[in-house]
Amino acid sequence: MIYEGKTKDVYKLEDGNYLLKFKDDLTGEAGVFDPGANSVALSIDGAGKAGLRLSKFFFEKLEEKEIPTHYIEADIEKATMTVKSAEVFGEGLEVICRYRAVGSFLGRYGKYVEEGEQLDAYVEVTLKDDERGDPLINKDALAMLDILSKDEYKELKMLTKNIAAVVKEELKKKGIELYDIKFEFGRVGADKEIALIDEISGSNMRAYKDGEYIEPLVLSKIMLEEE
Amino acid sequence: MIYEGKTKDVYKLEDGNYLLKFKDDLTGEAGVFDPGANSVALSIDGAGKAGLRLSKFFFEKLEEKEIPTHYIEADIEKATMTVKSAEVFGEGLEVICRYRAVGSFLGRYGKYVEEGEQLDAYVEVTLKDDERGDPLINKDALAMLDILSKDEYKELKMLTKNIAAVVKEELKKKGIELYDIKFEFGRVGADKEIALIDEISGSNMRAYKDGEYIEPLVLSKIMLEEE
Repeated sequence: MIYEGKTKDVYKLEDGNYLLKFKDDLTGEAGVFDPGANSVALSIDGAGKAGLRLSKFFFEKLEEKEIPTHYIEADIEKATMTVKSAEVFGEGLEVICRYRAVGSFLGRYGKYVEEGEQLDAYVEVTLKDDERGDPLINKDALAMLDILSKDEYKELKMLTKNIAAVVKEELKKKGIELYDIKFEFGRVGADKEIALIDEISGSNMRAYKDGEYIEPLVLSKIMLEEE
Repeated sequence: MIYEGKTKDVYKLEDGNYLLKFKDDLTGEAGVFDPGANSVALSIDGAGKAGLRLSKFFFEKLEEKEIPTHYIEADIEKATMTVKSAEVFGEGLEVICRYRAVGSFLGRYGKYVEEGEQLDAYVEVTLKDDERGDPLINKDALAMLDILSKDEYKELKMLTKNIAAVVKEELKKKGIELYDIKFEFGRVGADKEIALIDEISGSNMRAYKDGEYIEPLVLSKIMLEEE
Protein backbone atom coordinates (compact mmCIF):
# COMPACT_ATOMS: atom_id res chain seq x y z
CA MET A 1 0.00 0.00 0.00
CA ILE A 2 1.40 3.39 -0.92
CA TYR A 3 -1.50 5.66 0.07
CA GLU A 4 -4.46 5.43 2.41
CA GLY A 5 -7.25 7.67 1.18
CA LYS A 6 -10.56 8.67 2.70
CA THR A 7 -12.60 6.36 0.49
CA LYS A 8 -9.91 4.32 -1.32
CA ASP A 9 -6.53 2.77 -0.60
CA VAL A 10 -3.88 2.66 -3.31
CA TYR A 11 -1.43 -0.21 -3.93
CA LYS A 12 1.45 -0.27 -6.41
CA LEU A 13 1.58 -3.37 -8.64
CA GLU A 14 4.75 -5.00 -9.91
CA ASP A 15 3.95 -4.21 -13.55
CA GLY A 16 3.90 -0.45 -12.83
CA ASN A 17 0.12 -0.22 -12.66
CA TYR A 18 -1.83 0.55 -9.50
CA LEU A 19 -4.63 -1.12 -7.63
CA LEU A 20 -7.40 0.96 -6.04
CA LYS A 21 -9.25 -0.72 -3.18
CA PHE A 22 -12.69 0.81 -2.77
CA LYS A 23 -13.77 1.23 0.87
CA ASP A 24 -17.24 1.42 2.36
CA ASP A 25 -16.59 4.93 3.69
CA LEU A 26 -18.43 7.97 2.36
CA THR A 27 -17.62 11.66 2.81
CA GLY A 28 -20.13 13.93 4.49
CA GLU A 29 -20.94 15.83 7.63
CA ALA A 30 -22.64 14.72 10.85
CA GLY A 31 -23.36 11.26 9.45
CA VAL A 32 -25.03 12.59 6.28
CA PHE A 33 -23.42 11.92 2.90
CA ASP A 34 -22.24 15.01 0.98
CA PRO A 35 -20.07 14.64 -2.14
CA GLY A 36 -18.67 18.15 -1.46
CA ALA A 37 -17.46 17.29 2.05
CA ASN A 38 -13.86 16.66 3.02
CA SER A 39 -14.09 14.05 5.74
CA VAL A 40 -15.54 10.60 6.14
CA ALA A 41 -18.96 10.84 7.77
CA LEU A 42 -20.40 7.37 7.46
CA SER A 43 -19.70 3.82 6.37
CA ILE A 44 -22.25 1.65 4.60
CA ASP A 45 -21.80 -2.06 3.90
CA GLY A 46 -21.42 -2.54 0.17
CA ALA A 47 -20.78 1.16 -0.61
CA GLY A 48 -17.29 0.41 -1.95
CA LYS A 49 -18.44 -2.33 -4.32
CA ALA A 50 -21.44 -0.28 -5.46
CA GLY A 51 -19.17 2.67 -6.26
CA LEU A 52 -16.77 0.39 -8.10
CA ARG A 53 -19.53 -1.25 -10.17
CA LEU A 54 -20.84 2.14 -11.27
CA SER A 55 -17.30 3.39 -11.96
CA LYS A 56 -16.64 0.30 -14.10
CA PHE A 57 -19.86 0.98 -16.01
CA PHE A 58 -18.91 4.61 -16.75
CA PHE A 59 -15.22 3.97 -17.46
CA GLU A 60 -16.22 1.34 -20.02
CA LYS A 61 -18.68 3.79 -21.61
CA LEU A 62 -15.86 6.33 -21.86
CA GLU A 63 -13.55 3.70 -23.34
CA GLU A 64 -16.12 3.07 -26.12
CA LYS A 65 -16.08 6.78 -26.87
CA GLU A 66 -12.26 6.87 -26.82
CA ILE A 67 -12.14 9.36 -23.96
CA PRO A 68 -8.83 8.79 -22.13
CA THR A 69 -9.00 7.44 -18.55
CA HIS A 70 -6.67 5.57 -16.20
CA TYR A 71 -9.00 2.53 -16.10
CA ILE A 72 -7.73 -0.94 -16.99
CA GLU A 73 -10.08 -3.40 -15.28
CA ALA A 74 -12.20 -4.00 -12.19
CA ASP A 75 -12.68 -6.93 -9.84
CA ILE A 76 -16.04 -6.36 -8.18
CA GLU A 77 -15.70 -9.25 -5.69
CA LYS A 78 -12.41 -7.87 -4.37
CA ALA A 79 -13.64 -4.26 -4.67
CA THR A 80 -10.52 -3.34 -6.61
CA MET A 81 -9.82 -1.43 -9.81
CA THR A 82 -6.56 -1.76 -11.75
CA VAL A 83 -5.43 1.54 -13.23
CA LYS A 84 -2.51 3.03 -15.11
CA SER A 85 0.03 5.12 -13.22
CA ALA A 86 -0.88 8.80 -12.99
CA GLU A 87 0.71 12.06 -11.92
CA VAL A 88 -1.76 14.56 -10.55
CA PHE A 89 -1.57 18.29 -11.31
CA GLY A 90 0.15 20.11 -8.45
CA GLU A 91 -0.97 18.31 -5.30
CA GLY A 92 -4.32 17.42 -6.85
CA LEU A 93 -7.24 19.27 -8.41
CA GLU A 94 -10.95 18.71 -8.56
CA VAL A 95 -12.73 19.73 -11.73
CA ILE A 96 -16.45 20.29 -11.32
CA CYS A 97 -19.13 20.44 -13.99
CA ARG A 98 -22.40 22.03 -12.92
CA TYR A 99 -25.88 21.80 -14.47
CA ARG A 100 -27.80 23.16 -11.48
CA ALA A 101 -26.91 25.76 -8.83
CA VAL A 102 -26.44 23.73 -5.63
CA GLY A 103 -23.63 23.01 -3.15
CA SER A 104 -20.62 25.32 -2.91
CA PHE A 105 -21.60 27.16 -6.12
CA LEU A 106 -24.83 28.26 -4.48
CA GLY A 107 -22.89 29.09 -1.31
CA ARG A 108 -20.64 31.43 -3.26
CA TYR A 109 -23.03 32.96 -5.80
CA GLY A 110 -26.38 32.88 -3.99
CA LYS A 111 -26.67 36.64 -4.57
CA TYR A 112 -27.04 35.94 -8.29
CA VAL A 113 -28.76 32.54 -8.55
CA GLU A 114 -31.70 30.74 -7.04
CA GLU A 115 -31.15 27.28 -5.55
CA GLY A 116 -31.47 24.67 -8.28
CA GLU A 117 -31.31 27.17 -11.15
CA GLN A 118 -30.05 25.66 -14.42
CA LEU A 119 -26.41 26.20 -15.32
CA ASP A 120 -24.87 25.65 -18.71
CA ALA A 121 -22.35 22.81 -18.06
CA TYR A 122 -20.27 25.35 -16.14
CA VAL A 123 -16.77 24.07 -15.29
CA GLU A 124 -14.64 25.22 -12.37
CA VAL A 125 -11.48 23.99 -10.67
CA THR A 126 -10.72 23.68 -6.97
CA LEU A 127 -7.49 22.70 -5.23
CA LYS A 128 -7.55 19.53 -3.16
CA ASP A 129 -6.63 21.11 0.16
CA ASP A 130 -8.67 19.97 3.16
CA GLU A 131 -7.02 22.51 5.44
CA ARG A 132 -8.11 25.45 3.26
CA GLY A 133 -11.51 24.02 2.32
CA ASP A 134 -10.68 23.13 -1.30
CA PRO A 135 -10.38 26.71 -2.60
CA LEU A 136 -11.61 27.73 -6.03
CA ILE A 137 -8.83 28.69 -8.44
CA ASN A 138 -8.98 30.32 -11.85
CA LYS A 139 -7.03 29.66 -15.05
CA ASP A 140 -4.52 32.48 -14.53
CA ALA A 141 -3.64 31.38 -10.98
CA LEU A 142 -3.26 27.74 -12.06
CA ALA A 143 -0.81 28.83 -14.74
CA MET A 144 1.06 31.27 -12.47
CA LEU A 145 1.49 28.64 -9.73
CA ASP A 146 2.76 26.12 -12.34
CA ILE A 147 -0.09 23.72 -11.59
CA LEU A 148 -1.64 23.70 -15.07
CA SER A 149 -0.74 25.52 -18.27
CA LYS A 150 -3.43 27.54 -20.06
CA ASP A 151 -3.57 24.94 -22.82
CA GLU A 152 -3.96 22.14 -20.28
CA TYR A 153 -6.76 24.13 -18.63
CA LYS A 154 -8.56 24.31 -21.95
CA GLU A 155 -8.10 20.58 -22.50
CA LEU A 156 -9.32 19.74 -18.98
CA LYS A 157 -12.37 21.92 -19.42
CA MET A 158 -13.25 20.25 -22.71
CA LEU A 159 -12.68 16.72 -21.33
CA THR A 160 -14.78 17.58 -18.27
CA LYS A 161 -17.70 18.78 -20.40
CA ASN A 162 -17.48 15.69 -22.61
CA ILE A 163 -17.32 13.21 -19.73
CA ALA A 164 -20.06 14.98 -17.77
CA ALA A 165 -22.26 14.86 -20.89
CA VAL A 166 -21.77 11.09 -21.13
CA VAL A 167 -22.71 10.61 -17.47
CA LYS A 168 -25.67 12.99 -17.79
CA GLU A 169 -26.93 11.09 -20.83
CA GLU A 170 -26.67 7.69 -19.11
CA LEU A 171 -28.50 8.99 -16.03
CA LYS A 172 -31.19 10.51 -18.21
CA LYS A 173 -31.93 7.08 -19.69
CA LYS A 174 -33.06 6.05 -16.19
CA GLY A 175 -35.03 9.24 -15.60
CA ILE A 176 -32.33 10.71 -13.37
CA GLU A 177 -31.03 14.26 -13.61
CA LEU A 178 -27.38 15.12 -12.99
CA TYR A 179 -27.00 18.35 -10.99
CA ASP A 180 -23.22 18.39 -10.68
CA ILE A 181 -20.23 16.08 -10.85
CA LYS A 182 -16.59 16.33 -9.89
CA PHE A 183 -13.65 14.70 -11.57
CA GLU A 184 -9.95 14.24 -11.01
CA PHE A 185 -7.47 14.24 -13.84
CA GLY A 186 -3.84 13.34 -14.17
CA ARG A 187 -1.03 12.77 -16.62
CA VAL A 188 -1.49 9.07 -17.22
CA GLY A 189 0.73 6.19 -18.36
CA ALA A 190 4.12 6.32 -20.04
CA ASP A 191 3.12 9.05 -22.50
CA LYS A 192 1.66 11.33 -19.77
CA GLU A 193 -1.59 11.82 -21.61
CA ILE A 194 -4.16 13.94 -19.74
CA ALA A 195 -6.84 11.49 -18.65
CA LEU A 196 -9.61 10.99 -16.12
CA ILE A 197 -8.49 9.26 -12.91
CA ASP A 198 -10.14 8.31 -9.59
CA GLU A 199 -13.75 7.06 -9.88
CA ILE A 200 -17.14 7.99 -11.33
CA SER A 201 -19.87 7.05 -8.90
CA GLY A 202 -22.58 8.43 -6.68
CA SER A 203 -19.96 9.79 -4.34
CA ASN A 204 -18.70 12.19 -7.03
CA MET A 205 -22.00 13.60 -8.16
CA ARG A 206 -25.38 14.95 -7.14
CA ALA A 207 -28.15 13.05 -8.94
CA TYR A 208 -31.88 13.70 -8.56
CA LYS A 209 -35.01 11.82 -9.59
CA ASP A 210 -38.35 13.66 -9.57
CA GLY A 211 -36.74 16.40 -7.47
CA GLU A 212 -35.44 13.96 -4.84
CA TYR A 213 -31.75 13.47 -4.17
CA ILE A 214 -30.54 9.92 -4.84
CA GLU A 215 -28.05 8.35 -2.41
CA PRO A 216 -24.91 6.76 -3.95
CA LEU A 217 -25.99 3.15 -3.28
CA VAL A 218 -29.45 3.71 -4.70
CA LEU A 219 -27.92 5.37 -7.74
CA SER A 220 -25.70 2.33 -8.41
CA LYS A 221 -28.71 0.06 -8.07
CA ILE A 222 -30.91 2.07 -10.44
CA MET A 223 -28.15 2.53 -13.02
CA LEU A 224 -27.06 -1.10 -13.04
CA GLU A 225 -30.37 -2.95 -12.82
CA GLU A 226 -31.22 -5.06 -15.81
CA GLU A 227 -33.49 -3.35 -18.29
CA MET B 1 -27.79 61.40 -0.35
CA ILE B 2 -28.59 58.26 -2.27
CA TYR B 3 -26.23 55.76 -0.63
CA GLU B 4 -24.43 55.53 2.69
CA GLY B 5 -21.31 53.43 2.30
CA LYS B 6 -18.82 52.06 4.78
CA THR B 7 -16.15 54.64 3.98
CA LYS B 8 -17.98 57.05 1.64
CA ASP B 9 -21.43 58.57 1.22
CA VAL B 10 -22.81 59.21 -2.24
CA TYR B 11 -24.93 62.22 -3.30
CA LYS B 12 -26.62 62.79 -6.66
CA LEU B 13 -25.96 66.21 -8.22
CA GLU B 14 -28.45 68.14 -10.33
CA ASP B 15 -26.27 67.93 -13.46
CA GLY B 16 -26.37 64.13 -13.39
CA ASN B 17 -22.95 63.72 -11.81
CA TYR B 18 -22.36 62.35 -8.32
CA LEU B 19 -20.57 63.62 -5.25
CA LEU B 20 -18.58 61.21 -3.08
CA LYS B 21 -18.06 62.34 0.51
CA PHE B 22 -14.99 60.64 1.98
CA LYS B 23 -15.41 59.59 5.62
CA ASP B 24 -12.78 59.04 8.31
CA ASP B 25 -13.78 55.39 8.65
CA LEU B 26 -11.47 52.55 7.69
CA THR B 27 -12.26 48.87 7.16
CA GLY B 28 -10.57 46.25 9.27
CA GLU B 29 -10.97 43.84 12.11
CA ALA B 30 -10.70 44.33 15.87
CA GLY B 31 -9.61 47.95 15.46
CA VAL B 32 -6.79 47.13 13.04
CA PHE B 33 -6.96 48.40 9.45
CA ASP B 34 -7.20 45.72 6.74
CA PRO B 35 -8.00 46.66 3.11
CA GLY B 36 -9.42 43.15 2.62
CA ALA B 37 -11.94 43.44 5.47
CA ASN B 38 -15.66 44.02 5.06
CA SER B 39 -16.58 46.14 8.05
CA VAL B 40 -15.52 49.44 9.53
CA ALA B 41 -13.01 48.79 12.30
CA LEU B 42 -11.66 52.21 13.15
CA SER B 43 -11.99 55.90 12.50
CA ILE B 44 -9.02 58.26 12.24
CA ASP B 45 -9.29 62.04 12.05
CA GLY B 46 -8.21 63.15 8.61
CA ALA B 47 -8.37 59.66 7.03
CA GLY B 48 -11.09 60.74 4.59
CA LYS B 49 -9.20 63.80 3.34
CA ALA B 50 -5.92 61.86 3.15
CA GLY B 51 -7.62 59.18 1.04
CA LEU B 52 -9.17 61.80 -1.19
CA ARG B 53 -5.88 63.65 -1.71
CA LEU B 54 -4.13 60.46 -2.75
CA SER B 55 -7.07 59.46 -4.97
CA LYS B 56 -6.96 62.89 -6.67
CA PHE B 57 -3.23 62.41 -7.24
CA PHE B 58 -3.69 58.99 -8.88
CA PHE B 59 -6.82 59.87 -10.86
CA GLU B 60 -5.00 62.86 -12.36
CA LYS B 61 -2.03 60.63 -13.24
CA LEU B 62 -4.43 58.25 -15.01
CA GLU B 63 -6.08 61.17 -16.81
CA GLU B 64 -2.66 62.17 -18.19
CA LYS B 65 -2.28 58.63 -19.52
CA GLU B 66 -5.82 58.68 -20.98
CA ILE B 67 -6.95 55.74 -18.86
CA PRO B 68 -10.73 56.11 -18.38
CA THR B 69 -12.00 56.85 -14.85
CA HIS B 70 -15.12 58.39 -13.32
CA TYR B 71 -13.12 61.29 -11.82
CA ILE B 72 -14.06 64.90 -12.55
CA GLU B 73 -12.65 66.96 -9.67
CA ALA B 74 -11.94 66.94 -5.95
CA ASP B 75 -12.50 69.45 -3.15
CA ILE B 76 -10.04 68.49 -0.44
CA GLU B 77 -11.40 70.95 2.17
CA LYS B 78 -14.89 69.49 1.87
CA ALA B 79 -13.54 65.91 1.49
CA THR B 80 -15.62 65.46 -1.66
CA MET B 81 -14.95 64.12 -5.14
CA THR B 82 -17.21 64.87 -8.11
CA VAL B 83 -17.56 61.90 -10.44
CA LYS B 84 -19.47 60.82 -13.53
CA SER B 85 -22.48 58.54 -13.16
CA ALA B 86 -21.61 54.85 -13.19
CA GLU B 87 -23.38 51.51 -13.38
CA VAL B 88 -21.54 48.73 -11.60
CA PHE B 89 -21.30 45.19 -12.98
CA GLY B 90 -23.94 43.00 -11.37
CA GLU B 91 -24.20 44.19 -7.78
CA GLY B 92 -20.55 45.21 -7.72
CA LEU B 93 -17.18 43.56 -8.30
CA GLU B 94 -13.71 44.01 -6.91
CA VAL B 95 -10.82 43.46 -9.27
CA ILE B 96 -7.54 42.74 -7.54
CA CYS B 97 -4.02 42.92 -8.94
CA ARG B 98 -1.37 41.07 -6.96
CA TYR B 99 2.43 41.45 -6.96
CA ARG B 100 3.07 39.54 -3.72
CA ALA B 101 1.29 36.57 -2.11
CA VAL B 102 -0.45 38.04 0.94
CA GLY B 103 -4.03 38.43 2.20
CA SER B 104 -6.80 36.22 0.86
CA PHE B 105 -4.59 34.91 -1.97
CA LEU B 106 -2.20 33.42 0.58
CA GLY B 107 -5.21 32.16 2.55
CA ARG B 108 -6.43 30.24 -0.49
CA TYR B 109 -3.20 29.09 -2.09
CA GLY B 110 -0.83 28.75 0.85
CA LYS B 111 -0.20 25.14 -0.17
CA TYR B 112 1.56 26.43 -3.28
CA VAL B 113 3.13 29.78 -2.29
CA GLU B 114 5.18 31.20 0.52
CA GLU B 115 3.97 34.36 2.24
CA GLY B 116 5.24 37.39 0.33
CA GLU B 117 6.30 35.41 -2.76
CA GLN B 118 6.37 37.47 -5.95
CA LEU B 119 3.38 37.21 -8.27
CA ASP B 120 3.27 38.39 -11.85
CA ALA B 121 0.60 41.16 -11.75
CA TYR B 122 -1.97 38.41 -11.25
CA VAL B 123 -5.55 39.65 -11.65
CA GLU B 124 -8.62 38.09 -10.01
CA VAL B 125 -12.22 39.15 -9.50
CA THR B 126 -14.38 38.85 -6.39
CA LEU B 127 -18.06 39.64 -5.92
CA LYS B 128 -18.93 42.42 -3.49
CA ASP B 129 -21.03 40.34 -1.09
CA ASP B 130 -20.35 40.88 2.62
CA GLU B 131 -22.66 38.05 3.61
CA ARG B 132 -20.72 35.48 1.56
CA GLY B 133 -17.28 36.92 2.27
CA ASP B 134 -16.66 38.43 -1.18
CA PRO B 135 -16.30 35.14 -3.06
CA LEU B 136 -13.79 34.67 -5.86
CA ILE B 137 -15.38 34.21 -9.29
CA ASN B 138 -13.86 33.19 -12.60
CA LYS B 139 -14.42 34.42 -16.14
CA ASP B 140 -16.85 31.65 -17.13
CA ALA B 141 -19.08 32.16 -14.08
CA LEU B 142 -19.12 35.95 -14.59
CA ALA B 143 -20.31 35.41 -18.16
CA MET B 144 -22.85 32.70 -17.24
CA LEU B 145 -24.37 34.85 -14.48
CA ASP B 146 -24.61 37.81 -16.91
CA ILE B 147 -22.37 39.94 -14.74
CA LEU B 148 -19.58 40.49 -17.25
CA SER B 149 -19.11 39.27 -20.80
CA LYS B 150 -15.87 37.48 -21.73
CA ASP B 151 -14.76 40.51 -23.74
CA GLU B 152 -15.48 42.81 -20.82
CA TYR B 153 -13.47 40.49 -18.56
CA LYS B 154 -10.53 40.80 -20.91
CA GLU B 155 -10.85 44.59 -20.96
CA LEU B 156 -11.14 44.78 -17.16
CA LYS B 157 -8.08 42.61 -16.73
CA MET B 158 -6.04 44.78 -19.08
CA LEU B 159 -7.23 48.03 -17.48
CA THR B 160 -6.45 46.60 -14.04
CA LYS B 161 -2.90 45.67 -15.03
CA ASN B 162 -2.35 49.09 -16.60
CA ILE B 163 -3.69 51.06 -13.63
CA ALA B 164 -1.87 48.90 -11.09
CA ALA B 165 1.35 49.45 -13.04
CA VAL B 166 0.88 53.25 -12.83
CA VAL B 167 0.30 53.07 -9.06
CA LYS B 168 3.22 50.68 -8.58
CA GLU B 169 5.51 53.01 -10.53
CA GLU B 170 4.48 56.09 -8.51
CA LEU B 171 5.00 54.24 -5.22
CA LYS B 172 8.38 53.01 -6.40
CA LYS B 173 9.54 56.63 -6.87
CA LYS B 174 9.16 57.00 -3.10
CA GLY B 175 10.85 53.71 -2.31
CA ILE B 176 7.56 51.96 -1.61
CA GLU B 177 6.58 48.54 -2.93
CA LEU B 178 3.00 47.73 -3.95
CA TYR B 179 1.99 44.22 -2.80
CA ASP B 180 -1.61 44.25 -4.01
CA ILE B 181 -4.39 46.67 -4.95
CA LYS B 182 -8.11 46.37 -5.52
CA PHE B 183 -10.21 48.38 -7.93
CA GLU B 184 -13.84 48.87 -8.77
CA PHE B 185 -15.03 49.40 -12.31
CA GLY B 186 -18.28 50.48 -13.87
CA ARG B 187 -19.92 51.54 -17.10
CA VAL B 188 -19.39 55.29 -16.84
CA GLY B 189 -21.08 58.40 -18.26
CA ALA B 190 -23.53 58.66 -21.14
CA ASP B 191 -21.57 56.32 -23.41
CA LYS B 192 -21.22 53.57 -20.75
CA GLU B 193 -17.49 53.29 -21.23
CA ILE B 194 -15.79 50.79 -18.90
CA ALA B 195 -13.83 52.95 -16.46
CA LEU B 196 -12.27 52.92 -13.00
CA ILE B 197 -14.62 54.13 -10.25
CA ASP B 198 -14.42 54.47 -6.44
CA GLU B 199 -11.03 55.62 -5.09
CA ILE B 200 -7.31 54.82 -5.23
CA SER B 201 -5.78 55.26 -1.81
CA GLY B 202 -4.10 53.44 1.03
CA SER B 203 -7.39 51.79 1.89
CA ASN B 204 -7.42 49.91 -1.44
CA MET B 205 -3.88 48.59 -1.39
CA ARG B 206 -1.11 46.98 0.62
CA ALA B 207 2.05 49.05 0.38
CA TYR B 208 5.36 48.24 2.07
CA LYS B 209 8.57 50.16 2.67
CA ASP B 210 11.70 48.25 3.68
CA GLY B 211 9.50 45.24 4.48
CA GLU B 212 7.19 47.27 6.79
CA TYR B 213 3.52 47.76 6.02
CA ILE B 214 2.55 51.41 5.55
CA GLU B 215 -0.75 52.62 7.04
CA PRO B 216 -3.07 54.56 4.69
CA LEU B 217 -2.48 57.97 6.29
CA VAL B 218 1.28 57.54 6.28
CA LEU B 219 1.11 56.45 2.65
CA SER B 220 -0.76 59.64 1.67
CA LYS B 221 1.80 61.72 3.56
CA ILE B 222 4.81 60.06 1.91
CA MET B 223 3.27 60.11 -1.58
CA LEU B 224 2.17 63.74 -1.45
CA GLU B 225 5.06 65.40 0.37
CA GLU B 226 6.92 67.96 -1.68
CA GLU B 227 10.01 66.59 -3.36
